[in-house]
Amino acid sequence: MIPRYTRPEMAAIWEPLTRFKIWFEIEAHAADAQAAIGVIPKEAAEAIWKGGKDAAFDVARIDEIEREVKHDVIAFLTHLAEFVGPESRFVHQGMTSSDVLDTCFNVQLVRAADILIADIDRVLAALKKRAFEHKLTPSIGRSHGIHAEPVTFGLKLAYAYAEFSRARERMVAARKEVATCAISGSVGTFAHIDPRVEEHVAKSMGLTLEPISTQVIPRDRAAMYFSTLAVIASSVERLAVEIRHLQRTEVLEAEEYFSEGQKGSSSMPHKRNPVLTENLSGLARMVRAYSLPALENVVLWHERDISHSSAERMLAPDATVTLDFMLNRLAGVIEKLVIYPDNMRANLDKLGGLIHSQRMLTALTQKGCSREESYKLVQRNAMPVWRGEGEFQTLLKNDEGVKKYMTDAEIAEQFDLDYHFKHVDTIFERVFGEK
Amino acid sequence: MIPRYTRPEMAAIWEPLTRFKIWFEIEAHAADAQAAIGVIPKEAAEAIWKGGKDAAFDVARIDEIEREVKHDVIAFLTHLAEFVGPESRFVHQGMTSSDVLDTCFNVQLVRAADILIADIDRVLAALKKRAFEHKLTPSIGRSHGIHAEPVTFGLKLAYAYAEFSRARERMVAARKEVATCAISGSVGTFAHIDPRVEEHVAKSMGLTLEPISTQVIPRDRAAMYFSTLAVIASSVERLAVEIRHLQRTEVLEAEEYFSEGQKGSSSMPHKRNPVLTENLSGLARMVRAYSLPALENVVLWHERDISHSSAERMLAPDATVTLDFMLNRLAGVIEKLVIYPDNMRANLDKLGGLIHSQRMLTALTQKGCSREESYKLVQRNAMPVWRGEGEFQTLLKNDEGVKKYMTDAEIAEQFDLDYHFKHVDTIFERVFGEK
Amino acid sequence: MIPRYTRPEMAAIWEPLTRFKIWFEIEAHAADAQAAIGVIPKEAAEAIWKGGKDAAFDVARIDEIEREVKHDVIAFLTHLAEFVGPESRFVHQGMTSSDVLDTCFNVQLVRAADILIADIDRVLAALKKRAFEHKLTPSIGRSHGIHAEPVTFGLKLAYAYAEFSRARERMVAARKEVATCAISGSVGTFAHIDPRVEEHVAKSMGLTLEPISTQVIPRDRAAMYFSTLAVIASSVERLAVEIRHLQRTEVLEAEEYFSEGQKGSSSMPHKRNPVLTENLSGLARMVRAYSLPALENVVLWHERDISHSSAERMLAPDATVTLDFMLNRLAGVIEKLVIYPDNMRANLDKLGGLIHSQRMLTALTQKGCSREESYKLVQRNAMPVWRGEGEFQTLLKNDEGVKKYMTDAEIAEQFDLDYHFKHVDTIFERVFGEK
Amino acid sequence: MIPRYTRPEMAAIWEPLTRFKIWFEIEAHAADAQAAIGVIPKEAAEAIWKGGKDAAFDVARIDEIEREVKHDVIAFLTHLAEFVGPESRFVHQGMTSSDVLDTCFNVQLVRAADILIADIDRVLAALKKRAFEHKLTPSIGRSHGIHAEPVTFGLKLAYAYAEFSRARERMVAARKEVATCAISGSVGTFAHIDPRVEEHVAKSMGLTLEPISTQVIPRDRAAMYFSTLAVIASSVERLAVEIRHLQRTEVLEAEEYFSEGQKGSSSMPHKRNPVLTENLSGLARMVRAYSLPALENVVLWHERDISHSSAERMLAPDATVTLDFMLNRLAGVIEKLVIYPDNMRANLDKLGGLIHSQRMLTALTQKGCSREESYKLVQRNAMPVWRGEGEFQTLLKNDEGVKKYMTDAEIAEQFDLDYHFKHVDTIFERVFGEK
Repeated sequence: MIPRYTRPEMAAIWEPLTRFKIWFEIEAHAADAQAAIGVIPKEAAEAIWKGGKDAAFDVARIDEIEREVKHDVIAFLTHLAEFVGPESRFVHQGMTSSDVLDTCFNVQLVRAADILIADIDRVLAALKKRAFEHKLTPSIGRSHGIHAEPVTFGLKLAYAYAEFSRARERMVAARKEVATCAISGSVGTFAHIDPRVEEHVAKSMGLTLEPISTQVIPRDRAAMYFSTLAVIASSVERLAVEIRHLQRTEVLEAEEYFSEGQKGSSSMPHKRNPVLTENLSGLARMVRAYSLPALENVVLWHERDISHSSAERMLAPDATVTLDFMLNRLAGVIEKLVIYPDNMRANLDKLGGLIHSQRMLTALTQKGCSREESYKLVQRNAMPVWRGEGEFQTLLKNDEGVKKYMTDAEIAEQFDLDYHFKHVDTIFERVFGEK
Repeated sequence: MIPRYTRPEMAAIWEPLTRFKIWFEIEAHAADAQAAIGVIPKEAAEAIWKGGKDAAFDVARIDEIEREVKHDVIAFLTHLAEFVGPESRFVHQGMTSSDVLDTCFNVQLVRAADILIADIDRVLAALKKRAFEHKLTPSIGRSHGIHAEPVTFGLKLAYAYAEFSRARERMVAARKEVATCAISGSVGTFAHIDPRVEEHVAKSMGLTLEPISTQVIPRDRAAMYFSTLAVIASSVERLAVEIRHLQRTEVLEAEEYFSEGQKGSSSMPHKRNPVLTENLSGLARMVRAYSLPALENVVLWHERDISHSSAERMLAPDATVTLDFMLNRLAGVIEKLVIYPDNMRANLDKLGGLIHSQRMLTALTQKGCSREESYKLVQRNAMPVWRGEGEFQTLLKNDEGVKKYMTDAEIAEQFDLDYHFKHVDTIFERVFGEK
Repeated sequence: MIPRYTRPEMAAIWEPLTRFKIWFEIEAHAADAQAAIGVIPKEAAEAIWKGGKDAAFDVARIDEIEREVKHDVIAFLTHLAEFVGPESRFVHQGMTSSDVLDTCFNVQLVRAADILIADIDRVLAALKKRAFEHKLTPSIGRSHGIHAEPVTFGLKLAYAYAEFSRARERMVAARKEVATCAISGSVGTFAHIDPRVEEHVAKSMGLTLEPISTQVIPRDRAAMYFSTLAVIASSVERLAVEIRHLQRTEVLEAEEYFSEGQKGSSSMPHKRNPVLTENLSGLARMVRAYSLPALENVVLWHERDISHSSAERMLAPDATVTLDFMLNRLAGVIEKLVIYPDNMRANLDKLGGLIHSQRMLTALTQKGCSREESYKLVQRNAMPVWRGEGEFQTLLKNDEGVKKYMTDAEIAEQFDLDYHFKHVDTIFERVFGEK
Repeated sequence: MIPRYTRPEMAAIWEPLTRFKIWFEIEAHAADAQAAIGVIPKEAAEAIWKGGKDAAFDVARIDEIEREVKHDVIAFLTHLAEFVGPESRFVHQGMTSSDVLDTCFNVQLVRAADILIADIDRVLAALKKRAFEHKLTPSIGRSHGIHAEPVTFGLKLAYAYAEFSRARERMVAARKEVATCAISGSVGTFAHIDPRVEEHVAKSMGLTLEPISTQVIPRDRAAMYFSTLAVIASSVERLAVEIRHLQRTEVLEAEEYFSEGQKGSSSMPHKRNPVLTENLSGLARMVRAYSLPALENVVLWHERDISHSSAERMLAPDATVTLDFMLNRLAGVIEKLVIYPDNMRANLDKLGGLIHSQRMLTALTQKGCSREESYKLVQRNAMPVWRGEGEFQTLLKNDEGVKKYMTDAEIAEQFDLDYHFKHVDTIFERVFGEK
């Protein structure tokens, strides 16, 4: 989490003050429930809300106390007592630190998920807009980096739209995984606190009940959450790499927007480099990496150990802030992507018609030529074209083997570009629900 | 995937013959659809089924052809033609290799998921049975490896049951992620094949439509699948580590079943080592690792590159076979786990009553003592006990500070074990739906 | 890199101002070399040093320029010109940004390595001191968490000393890997800059020549560096886990130092948790994770892409700062570790003599009993002891099978503890070079 | 480790029979040493060699015994006794299983390292040969995928040569890391076996002494080894990706060799896909992943646990076999790489001279124009060329601003290609030690 790759809204979730405010809310809601079931006086619960609700918590002061007691929640409670007064003895009754820490962590992860879902929506909107703009812009499809057959540029963006639609569903599922609350006391037995307190806090904080906690909320939930982020970061990288490829000098079918004052290189002023998407490739590596400690964190000892905590203090802000930044950078790149249909067309024509070889192959077999024989006929005309010795359609028309099966007109028909786009509507309908 | 850690049922999914049979089914269903819409003769489709359905595919022969043509699907189709005869020219029309390869890969992943779900069910059944057996067997709960407060051994297994219930849900979701079919031809445009063929094959194979494929099925699906396996493997390790801890010489609250002829050590015959669960720890590391290439595989170039293929040939069998083995080994360990309630009780009593300090703390605050003061009172009596200088209850009863708030009887009440188990029913109800 | 786990000295390496000062040095040394070979006037080189050497670079101002030109090195050079004046046109001649960026990055990694090596030395010193203190303190050795045979506590620390000696060697090697300088201009051909400039800068900055750079310094060097950090972090975790185990309630052979005001738990005041070493376990997961993006960064496109940059901006500070923190925390834990020889002795005696079974086994075979038979004899007496039904030595003396080979005195001799420590001197000599 | 990506020589190292033979050698050498110091009769040592040296160990028989005793070393020793006869009771005296297992594992890793070093040598030889062939073949250097300035194709291969030279050094270091022997008995104290036995076995097996083992050889050594493999695999991928890029349709500067019968695609017969190098990209992901469990394996409990074993049984063969395959495949690709100098030249000219902009920039500043002003002059002429509106040299000659500093002849001089290659000899000298 470095300023360069951080958006303030997401960073705010992880600021100490945010954490302390959530801690307070958990404690105060718990006090309400404790008052309702008669464990503490109603006045105490009211005093807690009154003292803490708008309290200006002093992060430096809490840090100072923590340095002495070496315990973060005790430090906070000590500071809270400075606002609440003597009734503060009713705060945290029957609870353990993890009740506060883990429920708060989940609240933070839920808020982060909400931002990420909104981010994905921005990416989806950009993709949809540009996909429809270029629904029928012809472009070469490539497998193995080699020209294959025509696609449209809209299809390329539609692929991404479908992938980010899945990313959204996964993020919603990941949010649900972590939207739980545990107020179950030491080792999670509810020995010192009534389960009704947990029910009230969960409801008040918009969470569901953790069915069984062991003082800590089990970390398989967080592991699933951060693994989901890793998958989504990889999808971001896929699209980023597509753009990096399209911007290559020899390809140049699309370019990242290049603002006025921007300098591409300190030494080569003509250069317009895909630095935004290269940057996304690098950041994707980070978000993938953060999923690993989250997986190892699942394996806590007995009812709990605190080894997960140091890792989470680093990876949780880093992973969410970085993915938030990535999704927004990606959305911006797509929204302002400079697209060059003329270059796409020039690239399409680059291979002298060879990209239509598959159609020829099918046409020959449909005319009764065996698959093996068709393959040979097509290949023997394709190879010279590949070597720059002729044009595919012409060579085919002069091939005695081909002539046995097809007329010149029939051969020419195989070179029609629109043939490839006849199902674009079908695909758009599937992906966007409209065409 | 080594024999030692492989169960035959899962391994069978990844055998060449299985793959070829699935390939055949995909091709034959596609031929049916092509016949239905009039692209190929109905007789051709029939001939394909007739020739291939019970064909004894010869893996060595296919390998031999592949060595020449260096293309696996072409090698298979050439071999298939040997069974189908001249009508084989109608096989694979309009399709591309990936239509067969990727749809087959998903069928394999779906079958693997089905086995894994059944495996999890076995783990769940074992956990439930043993949890109810030991629902009220007292045991010490530990945080940081340090005695905390009492739990029951049944609760320990209930934690795991809840975690594996989540594992099951995740596995069901992962199965759904990969249960898609793509028959869309080169670069996925359906230029050479009607989308109705895909619909028919999908339905016949029990899959859903891939909304948009780019010749390949997008690998974010597989990334999610293998990430899910990594999370589940980590949950297996958590339980394995719990058992390894419980079997420690100093703890010895449970032990892996030790069969008659088994030798624990070549040099120390008294040793009974938790080798099965140690083994699970090691294997969990592998399954976690396999998720990484699956994440990197998402980032294919343009419409497709084939870099994912080599990685998947290794990781897909390895990850599914290993997790299948792990879940079954874990189930066996739980089913036959030797449990020592007497040792649990002895461990519970080990700290001279210190584990009841939290109760004392709460009791004092409820009697009107401030939280800070209560903490000090409890701590100053706890420390000597910790050093082996006295018994906690006795010291408390002799403490002038404590006496100001509590009678001897009230103190004694805090040392009652059943107090901790009053909500075990509630928790069991939540976890198992019964108590 | 969060304040909680950050030491200022290491963090300073990664501050913007440090980076700008290194950039300046590289530029100024390059100017010297350019002047020496007559490419720029000697006065220009002098003016550059004069203007920049003690310049108070304004980070905010550079950031402001960068926001406009979107290029960090150009922003810096523009700011530098404000100090140097018109002679600044001679700065950076023939160079490319990466010459500055990558050489600077390596300088930072070298400095970080120097701190890490000093950190390891602190760990080594602590281990050596405590190892000699407890060179002959008897302690049980454990395999699989099960009591095996006696060791000394000094040996346990000696194991760690040997491991950190290797860590030191690896760190020295990693430092060498990255101690290179590249001043080779665009795409690394020296077209615009004489190789003698690189030679001068390298020498002046204490670096060696990068034999061939491609505008960037190849990232396999950094990959090796961060992989080395990952291995060392794992060694830290190994020792941390040892201490966590030793501090378990049932074991309690050692404890982290617990300061006066410190509170172990908000609810259980008697608890003294191994939170420092648990914390190290968590941080080790992070440092391991950071090695992954460093590995992926190796695979840059053609002569260079900039995808590595975003990842390195995050992982390089995070990995070095975190490992620096870990090593220092570990050293502190070892220096102040509270060691309980009495508890070690009590644990040694816990198994009723079973830990001597291996000696009995060897003694029997040396008396002519077959290995298989000896194994059976030992095992049949060990099993009852394991079940708490008797004491090993006594049972052996009453076993008719054993009596055939050994007298009571010979059996008793096998239970002598010092027997196990006769080679401790040899081992200490090997590990520490002294005994 | 699947047949498709496995070379027999490396696979042989990991076969059960190889393992048993190494086990035998360790046991027999240990027996020699035991006889030499008088622990066992000389005749016994001789009998062991005699019985075991050329014994036809029966893997199936050993497996059968293991299924009963559930211990691999005991199973082997039982089988060995069938060859050695009654003297077999002197085998393994004072040793523990890990003495055999871990020393054997290291022998296997050393042998694997030797093969990998030979593999790297083959890669180096191929790179050197092709580099000298194309030492002065002009080719465009690319940063960010965008044309930068000229390089030679020989330089591209020289970069790789330097990287694989480092790979070789790292592999030699990794080999040294694991070339240790431990024969120290239970928990590593030498209680039951004289250190001279270890010395003899180490010397006989070509290993060094493990200074201190804890029954197991510490796993930081293996972690370093497998991390090194991960770095090397990433270097393989870097070169693989370079070739994949060069083979792109729009670039086509080099191509993997395409054998006669080979078919590129089942549907597009003209396609020649870089499938070998794509395959290397995928396999690199696997080898990187295998380093992670090796890192986690470092953290064993106390003197040893066996969690590393299951992971190593999988990852050690998989990582070494896969990297061996990769290096050989890479060498083959380089040896037979089809290189297209004409296409390189055409690509060089693609940008209308823009690639010489850096030279113009330098020339202008050398003529007294400020860096900022020069940058503007160059950029305003570069941008139209970029848009296809003119040729760079011509535009510059017509620019009034430029004219103030340079004549037409001086401008023309900046477009000379050889200017860029004047230091190729220097670089070759550095990299290859010859030019």
